[in-house]
Amino acid sequence: MTGCAITLSYPRRNLIDLSDFSAEEVNALLALAADIKKNPAAYQDACRGRVMATLFYEPSTRTQLSFQTAMLRLGGSVIGFDNPGNSSVSKGECLTDTTTIVSGYSDVLVIRHPKEGAARAASLKSKCSVVNAGDGGHLHPTQTLTDLLTLSQEKGRLTGLTIGLCGDLKNGRTVHSLIRAMSAYPGNRFILISTPYLALPDYSKAVLEASGCAYEEVSSLEEAIPQLDVLYMTRIQKERFESEEAYRQEKDVYILTKEKLEKGKQDLLVLHPLPRVDEISYEVDDDPRAMYFDQAVYGMYVRMALVYTLLLGTPAPLTDTFIKAPAHTCSNPNCITRSEPNLPHYYVMETGSEQCAYCSHAPLR
Amino acid sequence: MTGCAITLSYPRRNLIDLSDFSAEEVNALLALAADIKKNPAAYQDACRGRVMATLFYEPSTRTQLSFQTAMLRLGGSVIGFDNPGNSSVSKGECLTDTTTIVSGYSDVLVIRHPKEGAARAASLKSKCSVVNAGDGGHLHPTQTLTDLLTLSQEKGRLTGLTIGLCGDLKNGRTVHSLIRAMSAYPGNRFILISTPYLALPDYSKAVLEASGCAYEEVSSLEEAIPQLDVLYMTRIQKERFESEEAYRQEKDVYILTKEKLEKGKQDLLVLHPLPRVDEISYEVDDDPRAMYFDQAVYGMYVRMALVYTLLLGTPAPLTDTFIKAPAHTCSNPNCITRSEPNLPHYYVMETGSEQCAYCSHAPLR
Amino acid sequence: MTGCAITLSYPRRNLIDLSDFSAEEVNALLALAADIKKNPAAYQDACRGRVMATLFYEPSTRTQLSFQTAMLRLGGSVIGFDNPGNSSVSKGECLTDTTTIVSGYSDVLVIRHPKEGAARAASLKSKCSVVNAGDGGHLHPTQTLTDLLTLSQEKGRLTGLTIGLCGDLKNGRTVHSLIRAMSAYPGNRFILISTPYLALPDYSKAVLEASGCAYEEVSSLEEAIPQLDVLYMTRIQKERFESEEAYRQEKDVYILTKEKLEKGKQDLLVLHPLPRVDEISYEVDDDPRAMYFDQAVYGMYVRMALVYTLLLGTPAPLTDTFIKAPAHTCSNPNCITRSEPNLPHYYVMETGSEQCAYCSHAPLR
Repeated sequence: MTGCAITLSYPRRNLIDLSDFSAEEVNALLALAADIKKNPAAYQDACRGRVMATLFYEPSTRTQLSFQTAMLRLGGSVIGFDNPGNSSVSKGECLTDTTTIVSGYSDVLVIRHPKEGAARAASLKSKCSVVNAGDGGHLHPTQTLTDLLTLSQEKGRLTGLTIGLCGDLKNGRTVHSLIRAMSAYPGNRFILISTPYLALPDYSKAVLEASGCAYEEVSSLEEAIPQLDVLYMTRIQKERFESEEAYRQEKDVYILTKEKLEKGKQDLLVLHPLPRVDEISYEVDDDPRAMYFDQAVYGMYVRMALVYTLLLGTPAPLTDTFIKAPAHTCSNPNCITRSEPNLPHYYVMETGSEQCAYCSHAPLR
Repeated sequence: MTGCAITLSYPRRNLIDLSDFSAEEVNALLALAADIKKNPAAYQDACRGRVMATLFYEPSTRTQLSFQTAMLRLGGSVIGFDNPGNSSVSKGECLTDTTTIVSGYSDVLVIRHPKEGAARAASLKSKCSVVNAGDGGHLHPTQTLTDLLTLSQEKGRLTGLTIGLCGDLKNGRTVHSLIRAMSAYPGNRFILISTPYLALPDYSKAVLEASGCAYEEVSSLEEAIPQLDVLYMTRIQKERFESEEAYRQEKDVYILTKEKLEKGKQDLLVLHPLPRVDEISYEVDDDPRAMYFDQAVYGMYVRMALVYTLLLGTPAPLTDTFIKAPAHTCSNPNCITRSEPNLPHYYVMETGSEQCAYCSHAPLR
Repeated sequence: MTGCAITLSYPRRNLIDLSDFSAEEVNALLALAADIKKNPAAYQDACRGRVMATLFYEPSTRTQLSFQTAMLRLGGSVIGFDNPGNSSVSKGECLTDTTTIVSGYSDVLVIRHPKEGAARAASLKSKCSVVNAGDGGHLHPTQTLTDLLTLSQEKGRLTGLTIGLCGDLKNGRTVHSLIRAMSAYPGNRFILISTPYLALPDYSKAVLEASGCAYEEVSSLEEAIPQLDVLYMTRIQKERFESEEAYRQEKDVYILTKEKLEKGKQDLLVLHPLPRVDEISYEVDDDPRAMYFDQAVYGMYVRMALVYTLLLGTPAPLTDTFIKAPAHTCSNPNCITRSEPNLPHYYVMETGSEQCAYCSHAPLR
């Protein structure tokens, strides 16, 4: 693909991808979140007079309520919708018209959308900061910030941890993003607990190898659990197994029960991005090592820190350099460019290859 | 049923059933509500920095808006949903996982649910106070508080009143709860105006008799109205009549018209929990004795008093003693234990019989 | 029709029709909006402790978010719904019961409804100020206020402007209302750019003629554009063309492209009430004359000024004089009186003819 390079600079910072923030900025966010948790009253009027818009084009109650509470607990207020059927979308308005208009009413725009790249698209014309609250299976950076805050607060460090990742490691964006984040800190080691069919994809293993992070792949949660400092559970959907037979044979192996947990260390942390279906038995909830409900509360604090930083902080300015091509040719059928043909045709170069600037997929050949 | 007794104590008070509050506490709530109504400005920042979550698993606009306004007029803020289809429920998350997570974001959780016992279920794991805003046909304690505040403010007393209850006395939880509450005050007398088919059930008559409260059953609103201090109207749904023929013959008898109202005392109060369909003629609205729209406003004030008390008051600690049984065996098909099998199996002893701790029904034999 | 005259006076002002405000009051509103835009911090606590209810019986995301933001940026708070399926409407409650109850919770009630006359109906029994946020195809006065503020701020004047109105001039209430408003200011001139089939209706031309305002009707946007100070674009829906053939032949004529815009003056303003579908090419968005996204932001400021005035101002009291007739006989099938038979039967005399007091249509003969 050929095209001219275009550099965009933003008057206000966005969080579309966690890599929009430097390692120092992430650490500062975590420290701020910890301070807010300790002294909430000191921040309760920080964002008075400011407005957050939460535009949820698909339902995600927990994420939406977490962002809303974060803004309200900073003294700000909230507008938004959670039901695309009720929005102007039903009158055929394109995504960026809606987000541009609403960005004129608000100080920070939080967007959740089933299409990959939607948050990036919204950010191009937004009059205020944009936060990606999940774009299809692509990115969900505040979930990863939540995980980092939980670990740093409950373990006291982000280094030298043996982290078990259990369940569907093939399809979980949460897992891939956590690996990218934690492999940047020294001394961490991953135990990947899954079936061969649901194993971690090669591009995520490449991240581990590039960072020199130790890892091993195993198939038994029960055998792996004694050595773990952290067990990160994920949901395996029935339809994700190779076959009905594989499902019947394997599913119980990846369910955390009280019996399996008995083999874990006394200071093990059990995390889960929630919602849980049946991959953690309800009896586990009463164990002090079950940290997933507290993790959700940490999610609120880290979002407070993020909103505070975007609205009141003075982060370094950010620029993006895109290649403007004559047409969209993204290979991803779920890319926002497929449903919003009026978006500018932007690509980026990533380790020598072209990627769609919206959804990170390769162009069609 | 056999099982061990378990005593739960709550760090913060809930309002699941009106009996969770003592008579003194109810009277204090009514006095506080009256003071808030008189001096709203004195309370407008009382709950600044606090968050209410309204989780409405079935629509009830008036109740939800009333709770929300109560919190907002105390200076607090509100999150929540009114559309289960938009919530994580649709991803298969169990009720208590959702309520536990949201309780970690908020300071008071208001729940409305079509299943009986849902508010009790939410309260077991909640990290904050829980208020029952209606659980199926079971309980709706803030409606009764609304009725008590309206009577105490508009009549100046809760004693020595002749109260007509008109319409469907068989199915109305509002009526049963009002009878329980008002029969505890001395000198009240009830006139039960209904068809034999829609008459007050025996367990509610037992409440009247146990308290020594006078009552009589009549079939004509027109004949009963002259002696009343209060007329509490309820909706009779067509499908609640014994037969189509009974409906045609009887329905007009229980409609309050201007003509019937002319026979009422000058200081009669006409109440209705709303929504009204056609059981009160619209021409009655202009009569000063029609108090149902003011009653809705009293509902907002009593909810302000409740929220204030739960968040800022120092009510006596509450404990519940439950019997833990090996399995759920509630006889009520609409009980929350039927759809949420992971709930603990709790029963209580009530006047010598076992009752489901969630929905108050008897166990299966 | 015969009937007695009834004069209603309102303790608080409403905005149902823009004519509820005098020319002086409109000018004061615009001046206040300009001041708020310049000094937002001076107003950010003005409405603290006050509550707005937004009752949207049909979805209109932009309008609802604009009103909500207006209230929040004044320090007030917001309740409401945007989904009639979730409201008590589904239990058969009539419109005015719902609005009366909610008006008891709030300080200003903003209503959007698909039936014409719904806002008037709500205002008759409301306990607080009512704002019409669109009643069917009838009135939408805050859109017109938005247009006036945009023109006065971006042009510096509301007089001596040549205004092109382009597209569907037959069905657009926005256009008719703007004509009524701008023809009251001296020296304005209208160029009506449309097909004969979608031309401005006679009653709207009568407004122009009565005010002595110059206008001409043309069919080519390209030819008209050089002389314009303002180009007000509207959507032409495909089904509004006379025939499929007419649609194919004519549609491109009314689309604003970069090429057509090149012929416009350097200080031309392009407005659009939004949502836009394809009547303005996306490439036009980057032209500094494209003012439609800024127009949406002006809409927020003018609503702040309106809410401020209704809640805190001391506008002259308003009275309405209606003729009470024995029955509703409005000729408009979409009139609120058709679906709400319990409304009082009110008419008004307008230039010698009877009009429905709700929807302004003539009575049935």
